Amino acid sequence: MKTVRIALIGYGNVGKAFAEMLRRKEEYIRNTYHAKAVITAICTATRGGVIKPEGIDTQTLTDEMFDKGLDAFAVIESGEYDIMIELTPINIMTGQPATDHVRRALQLGKHVITANKGPVAWRYRELRDLAQEQGVGFCHEATVMDGTPVYNLTKETLKGCRITEVSGIFNATTNFILTEMEQGVSFEDAVEEGRRQGFVEADASMDIDGWDAAAKLTALMNVLMDVEITPLEIDRTGIGEITKADIDAARKQGKRIKLLCRGRVEDGKPVGVVRPTLVDEHTLPAIMDATSSYVTIDTDLMGATTVIEEPFEPEIDHTAYGVLSDVLRILSDFYK
Amino acid sequence: MKTVRIALIGYGNVGKAFAEMLRRKEEYIRNTYHAKAVITAICTATRGGVIKPEGIDTQTLTDEMFDKGLDAFAVIESGEYDIMIELTPINIMTGQPATDHVRRALQLGKHVITANKGPVAWRYRELRDLAQEQGVGFCHEATVMDGTPVYNLTKETLKGCRITEVSGIFNATTNFILTEMEQGVSFEDAVEEGRRQGFVEADASMDIDGWDAAAKLTALMNVLMDVEITPLEIDRTGIGEITKADIDAARKQGKRIKLLCRGRVEDGKPVGVVRPTLVDEHTLPAIMDATSSYVTIDTDLMGATTVIEEPFEPEIDHTAYGVLSDVLRILSDFYK
Repeated sequence: MKTVRIALIGYGNVGKAFAEMLRRKEEYIRNTYHAKAVITAICTATRGGVIKPEGIDTQTLTDEMFDKGLDAFAVIESGEYDIMIELTPINIMTGQPATDHVRRALQLGKHVITANKGPVAWRYRELRDLAQEQGVGFCHEATVMDGTPVYNLTKETLKGCRITEVSGIFNATTNFILTEMEQGVSFEDAVEEGRRQGFVEADASMDIDGWDAAAKLTALMNVLMDVEITPLEIDRTGIGEITKADIDAARKQGKRIKLLCRGRVEDGKPVGVVRPTLVDEHTLPAIMDATSSYVTIDTDLMGATTVIEEPFEPEIDHTAYGVLSDVLRILSDFYK
Repeated sequence: MKTVRIALIGYGNVGKAFAEMLRRKEEYIRNTYHAKAVITAICTATRGGVIKPEGIDTQTLTDEMFDKGLDAFAVIESGEYDIMIELTPINIMTGQPATDHVRRALQLGKHVITANKGPVAWRYRELRDLAQEQGVGFCHEATVMDGTPVYNLTKETLKGCRITEVSGIFNATTNFILTEMEQGVSFEDAVEEGRRQGFVEADASMDIDGWDAAAKLTALMNVLMDVEITPLEIDRTGIGEITKADIDAARKQGKRIKLLCRGRVEDGKPVGVVRPTLVDEHTLPAIMDATSSYVTIDTDLMGATTVIEEPFEPEIDHTAYGVLSDVLRILSDFYK
């Protein structure tokens, strides 16, 4: 029986849901991988960190157990873990500090999982190559469509295919707002409702202005098409200018407005577009209501494969599952 | 550099498309797996078989090179291969002779790939256990939705999830007929058009009566939900009784008629249903036109993940890719 030690850098809702899921699947992990996965380090934004090489029981974790002096880098440098999981809030415009967290853990020879898309949108190639040099895993399934398989799907089930295009609806918040507006709700009220339901951030501008979608498109293009592009280079239009009148006019033509993303390589250059687009009502993007999203992957050998994430309740669990599936991938690839 | 020898049991359009795809990806296979995959045995229904341990160049293969005396079992018994690929026509009511082909090759310690769903619908558990005992691979990705990942998706990207339900539109022929009928084409003309386009069999009854969909549902349930069920136990209704009037009446209510499949375990028993069903026009099954199909996989941890196969031209290549992806899986699992 091997023991695999996990450090959680960031411990909000996703971290807590992950810890619970890990407990729930303890027996499965033991039976399948002959391994025990234990959380040995946790770092929070405001309460400091806790390191317990023998394992932290997250069910009995109290504030008093945290050491205010332990910040993310101190926990990462401690080395008291085999897998570092990056769960800090994203800064889409810089990818930091998540990118530095990931880089440092990889340099220390640790496996890394990130649910934060910053490192994949900003420094994917460098980090991928570093992980390869170090002989460790670098996984990021939860960065697009939560736990719905996109990266693993391409890597594990579309083997041998060259990816020629990625497209879809990647941002749930804007899709929710557009769906609400079609029901007659105002833009502002839709944002407020999204906040009430917990999936719209206090500052919704990263979603509304298309930055979140652009970062996801960038991440997908970097990983699946082996290019180097950043969110700044995406041809990006958000939904801030869409009015009720636009939506009604679309409806009258039997169409809907959706924030579509598309990335491909043209004349050797990566080209990514995020843009509100008129779509026919009986098409896949049109029927994606509320917090649904999808990714279509076009290939040379297999035409197009599409994967859909259905509306979720709660989203947190899907993201936590994305992280768990990466843990299982690392167990499968490195501990069997 | 390892050499992996392949026997093709059945050599129709899919076998030929697979041989061509294998050539096309020769360099990829060499670079990724440090292996060379060569076809060393081919068996046809009417011309006999050919065995060449040094490899068959399928581009220069002529009728004279076939030995009339070599039938499928003679080729299988020869043992001049590492992977046997079962590509014979299916008998949905018995799963034979494909099941016997698969069993014998597994008994001989060979890896097996089947594009024929018979063995998976009729004897999955026995064959899976036999493969495990023998320490070989048994793959069947092409048996549902051609090369679109379903089995590999579940096994490789939904690790740790328990599958609670499988559902979707699994049969392209009936979906095509229903779509044509909505355009005003008669049932008979739709069948004829499908034949002309090459994806409807001379005897279309296996599709129309829901047997093909039932066999696919059975295969999915056996593999993904670890049950033992056969196509005979599926609660099955075909589309033979659907009239133009039914379709028009549905349309008037803003609905469409689709041949839906659903399988789950109820009170410990596998329950599978294939049935023409009224669906709302702005839902996923409703927008599946022509030869599109989809599978939705419900899980305990991740909610529902849906994968779509878009209309294909030609279908043959997608099926061939399903077989190729299984070859790559075997290379990855057993030859790395």
